[in-house]
Amino acid sequence: MDVPESSAPATRSERHARVWLSRVVEPGQLVVYNLIRRLGVCGLVERLLDGTAPRGIRGATAERIARADPVQDLAAAERRGIRFLMPGDADWPAQAISPLHMASAGSAQRVAPPEWLWVQGEGSLDELLTRSVSVIGSRAFSPYGEHVATDLAFGLADRGWSVVSGGAYGIDGAAHRGAISAGGRTVAFLAGGLDTPYPSGHLGLFDRIRKCGLLVSEWPVRSAPQRYRFLIRNRLIAAVSVGTVVVEAAARSGTSSTAGYVERLGRSLMAVPGPVTSALSVGTHELLRGSARLVTRVEEVIEEVGAIGDDLAPRPVGRRDARDDLDDLARQIIDGMPAQAPARPEQIALEAGVPVGDVLRVLPALQLQDFVEPAGDGWRLTERLRSPGGDASAAGTGRV
Amino acid sequence: MDVPESSAPATRSERHARVWLSRVVEPGQLVVYNLIRRLGVCGLVERLLDGTAPRGIRGATAERIARADPVQDLAAAERRGIRFLMPGDADWPAQAISPLHMASAGSAQRVAPPEWLWVQGEGSLDELLTRSVSVIGSRAFSPYGEHVATDLAFGLADRGWSVVSGGAYGIDGAAHRGAISAGGRTVAFLAGGLDTPYPSGHLGLFDRIRKCGLLVSEWPVRSAPQRYRFLIRNRLIAAVSVGTVVVEAAARSGTSSTAGYVERLGRSLMAVPGPVTSALSVGTHELLRGSARLVTRVEEVIEEVGAIGDDLAPRPVGRRDARDDLDDLARQIIDGMPAQAPARPEQIALEAGVPVGDVLRVLPALQLQDFVEPAGDGWRLTERLRSPGGDASAAGTGRV
Repeated sequence: MDVPESSAPATRSERHARVWLSRVVEPGQLVVYNLIRRLGVCGLVERLLDGTAPRGIRGATAERIARADPVQDLAAAERRGIRFLMPGDADWPAQAISPLHMASAGSAQRVAPPEWLWVQGEGSLDELLTRSVSVIGSRAFSPYGEHVATDLAFGLADRGWSVVSGGAYGIDGAAHRGAISAGGRTVAFLAGGLDTPYPSGHLGLFDRIRKCGLLVSEWPVRSAPQRYRFLIRNRLIAAVSVGTVVVEAAARSGTSSTAGYVERLGRSLMAVPGPVTSALSVGTHELLRGSARLVTRVEEVIEEVGAIGDDLAPRPVGRRDARDDLDDLARQIIDGMPAQAPARPEQIALEAGVPVGDVLRVLPALQLQDFVEPAGDGWRLTERLRSPGGDASAAGTGRV
Repeated sequence: MDVPESSAPATRSERHARVWLSRVVEPGQLVVYNLIRRLGVCGLVERLLDGTAPRGIRGATAERIARADPVQDLAAAERRGIRFLMPGDADWPAQAISPLHMASAGSAQRVAPPEWLWVQGEGSLDELLTRSVSVIGSRAFSPYGEHVATDLAFGLADRGWSVVSGGAYGIDGAAHRGAISAGGRTVAFLAGGLDTPYPSGHLGLFDRIRKCGLLVSEWPVRSAPQRYRFLIRNRLIAAVSVGTVVVEAAARSGTSSTAGYVERLGRSLMAVPGPVTSALSVGTHELLRGSARLVTRVEEVIEEVGAIGDDLAPRPVGRRDARDDLDDLARQIIDGMPAQAPARPEQIALEAGVPVGDVLRVLPALQLQDFVEPAGDGWRLTERLRSPGGDASAAGTGRV
């Protein structure tokens, strides 16, 4: 790595310039994105240093500029196994973030691509994100949401999809855990420095994520997970995966910000329904009343994000009734028979509303299929059609 | 009522002809509908009597024809307070069944309007159906489904909507009960004679329905609720209401037959989601993955079925945070302050990433709004912003 002798901002190296910017400016700003396109990163650093950069760049205060030290930041990161990624690097997820580049063109959107990423863990970020699904939801969550998120993430990871989430308590944590328990891969996008990943209650989880995936952040070490940073971070979770599944979300939650990005970025937005009596499903139901796609099982998620015609979810099938395969006439005759007692063909014909000739013709066929049997001077239903309660109509009330 | 002296088929009276047909042919047959349009009801009766009617009319067997007695059927009905309705009667729900007339034109649809209806209870069927919603679901149901169905029906009835359902155990029963408990009106469409309404376990419920609404059937007294009759009956439940709400339904259930009619008839199809872990919501989720509209509350149902622009459901709102109304700069400054300890403006500026000048300008304004207060040689958050756990970032992690 090209480390300069002095600890002054390393404008002569684009990598150091980006590390320096990572410390000085808040990520996700369209003004920064546009300036980099116009001046280059080194040009922007120079303008910030000599005070000629436009005002209004969030974070670029005199205090931060005075203290920024990219060499020290890189060294501190390296000691912790944190790597710095920038466009052009082999692991840079150019394909995954491409929707952000497209969105940055429409400037009204106010969505800028990342200009750098800090990563820690195993594997190539680019490769991990190529076939990934984001699974997100609220920090407050129910046992139902935890179960569903874990189960979905397990299924996705088990089928070779990486699971992306935000490392938070609740649904995020369940998603990461589900992927890990499948022996799969998972990526956590955090909103602060990777030296002190937030929340601290997830330190054990973060250790496990580093072993089978990556922690990722746009912020350098010693950056607190400020409230507004989560909103900036959310655009990455929304952008990098082919689709995002919202598992549980209260009304008007942070999750809606991510969901909004998913839609704006043209990615696939999915949501898992829940009980309408649960406050934690109000947000998902709102999304489902909008344009989100309802998903209930991992197969449906994969059908949505997979290549068209690739993975089609099988339709769920109910318990089949032996009678379902019969034609109308045969079914009508069976329906016309009493539940327990035998009946004569004329009685059956009258009750079923079909000619006696039809009854006499069909009954032997039904006997071959073990639906009816001769009894006394008539016929009766076989054991398997006789309902325990002894009421034929109870067994056949159309609500199968 | 025009009661003929003889008990022979009363072909000379259209009313008696229809009562006779009600006993002889199964309802819902397009062939019958078309013959009535061509020959008139009396003409059709004559053809059935002299054996020149087309073969293949379901139910029109020699046995039924020989035994049919409209005078006796009307008398038996009248003794039980059951009325016979036909097109042209003041209470005939011409408007409600109009989608069936439209559907009968496209003959591939195989959906025929009713030609007669037996009703029992209070009120005009036409009036009851004018402003009605059907609430249906599976017989097997969960406490969740029962709660939701009861609640929705209560809310609809409370707002002056009649609740239509099928009188069955499970969701149907809960829907009727919800409407009754609101002091509202409800209509049960049954699949057998009203003299022995099915299921018998609902006799008490049927008594209550008769007092605040109607029991309705296409079948005359002494007609058993055969399995296939429920499917015929379902088209009425789907047709007569502006919209149908499915509360719980297993995969491949009888409810899907009704839902299919709702869509074919151009009525509004709604479904209530539930836990994806519940087999009883598999059917509703399938509908929601199709064209059904997701509804979670009675307001949303009414928004869907009500006149456009009439009843718009308010969007659910989450718990508002005092900080939500602040502008970006103020929020950033608050986010930059430690949770408990006071901080000097320069520290706050550094942490928040904004110029010290901005911090010094904004803090007094925030003090006026009771967000911050002077402390020591700096400022701190007021009590209401300090989180009990003492960690500012925990209180503001973006997932609000």
